[in-house]
Order: sequence, then structure tokens, then C-alpha cells
Amino acid sequence: MRILGIDPGLHITGWGIIDYDGFHLKQIGNGTIITNTSDEITLRLSNIFQRLSSIIEKYVPEEVGIEDIFVNKNPISSLKLGMARGAAMCCVGISRLKIAEYTPNKIKKSVVGAGHATKEQISIMVQKLLNCGNVKLDAADALAIAICHAHYRKPYETGK
Amino acid sequence: MRILGIDPGLHITGWGIIDYDGFHLKQIGNGTIITNTSDEITLRLSNIFQRLSSIIEKYVPEEVGIEDIFVNKNPISSLKLGMARGAAMCCVGISRLKIAEYTPNKIKKSVVGAGHATKEQISIMVQKLLNCGNVKLDAADALAIAICHAHYRKPYETGK
Repeated sequence: MRILGIDPGLHITGWGIIDYDGFHLKQIGNGTIITNTSDEITLRLSNIFQRLSSIIEKYVPEEVGIEDIFVNKNPISSLKLGMARGAAMCCVGISRLKIAEYTPNKIKKSVVGAGHATKEQISIMVQKLLNCGNVKLDAADALAIAICHAHYRKPYETGK
Repeated sequence: MRILGIDPGLHITGWGIIDYDGFHLKQIGNGTIITNTSDEITLRLSNIFQRLSSIIEKYVPEEVGIEDIFVNKNPISSLKLGMARGAAMCCVGISRLKIAEYTPNKIKKSVVGAGHATKEQISIMVQKLLNCGNVKLDAADALAIAICHAHYRKPYETGK
């Protein structure tokens, strides 16, 4: 089964694709979608949407995992994060893919074994678990979400 | 010049199209995009995106107005509003249309003459200003945004 993990953000959206056969995890692709802070917000959002659409078209994932709503204390930050998340989830909806949401703690636990871990620790563990080379921090977060989904997905949801 | 006003919301997104020749306002179309609360959020967001895309394709607006960030005290509400707004703005970005944002007070002032008005008052004034029949409340809000843009748009932004 092929899983896409998404870590959305208005400035940087991480993505990672893994294959999971029930026993082994394999890294297929990963990267970051970086939008230009000087561009209009509509253009930044459509960039996230279009780049994610291309990734879905290229890698043909069967399921998607995304970080659960992280409620920022700052409502403006929540709204910006919401917009990036909206563009990403809208793209997943158009592709008619199932999405599952995981809390940051659950994601960290599934790769590092603890609910509190730095981005660097996550990156190191993701690279060990997937036996792959250097991965950018935001892409590692996305791969961690995909790994988390591999462990916690509910098979009855998709019949697989 | 043809203007699209959008009042985004995860449950109800209002839209309204007007023509403005510098003196007269004319209502061209309006409506609401209602998503099913029992549907998955990805499907709801892609519905907003796809319905707005069809509206842009059908009416070919030249400029777009949207309500400025309304920061809800509840971060979860801000995030949900952000997601709907993200899907709508992403659609505008893909259409390469310019968007302008207006505060709720400015929108109300431009149709009712006061910064504080009920949705019903806005609807009545919008119908009077556009000389059109019964308009749903959320569609009236979107038409009010379009009227506000007609009054406050910066011509140098588009060269018109």
C-alpha cells in the first residue's frame, strides 16, 4: 500500500511517500513545497494545490495521512495554517483519496517512541526506519506522518 | 468590469457577481455553496473549490473581493474558516485573478452606511442597490463584498 504523508504550511509544506506491505516500510519519494512570501496569498495557495496534485498524479498514493489540527494560540497563525491545510485537503478531496489525521504526539511516538521530540530527532529516526539518505526536516515530518499512518491506519475504513 | 464577491465558510459559502461601469451596479448572479456536514472535510473543501471554479468559468469575473480575515476567538473556528478560505483562495489563484480583502466593517459601511448592521439589513440594502429580487443572506453578504470592491478597488492594481 502506498501512503502519502503531508505536513502543510503556508511557507513550507512537507510531503513524503512510502510503501508498506504490512511488515516493511520503503521510502519512495519526499520533498518540500516552498512558497514565496512576497507572492500574493492566492498564488501561494494555488502553488501548494498544484504541486501536491502533481505529486499525487506521479506517485498514485492509495491513502493519505496529515497532522491533526494544531491549534496555535495566535488566531492569525491558526488561520494561515488553516488556509494552507485547506488548499492541501482540497487537493486530496479532488483526488477522492481517504485522509486520516494524527496528533503531533502520536506521530512523534510512532517514529521516536516518545511524544516529545525535536525535528532533528524525527529526521534521524525517519532516515533510520526508512534506510534512506539525508532528508529535509519538513519532508522528514511528512514521512513520519506516513509511517504513523502505516502503523495506525484502520483497515476497515478502506477494506484493505 | 465584472466583480466576484466571496463570503467563504466551511458549511455555507456565499458568492455574488456584479457588473460595474464606474457609475452603475448590476447584479449578474448569486448563490450559496452548501456542504454536507456529514461528508468528510476533504470532500467538503473540494466541493467549495469545484463549485467556485465552475462559477468563475461561467461568469468570467475580472476581479475578486473577499472578506478580510475574521479572527474568531475560538482557534478551532479560525482554523475551519481558514480551511474554507484556503480552498476558495486557492481556486482564485489558479484562475490567476486578483483578489482584494475588506474588513467586515468596511463592507457593511459600503452598503448600509454603518459599520454595524445585521445580515438582514445588509440583504435589504443589497437588493435595493442592485434592484434585484430576494437574495439569500449569505449570497447577499457576497454581493455586498462585490459592491464594496466596486467602491474601494485600486484601479492602479490592474491598470483599469
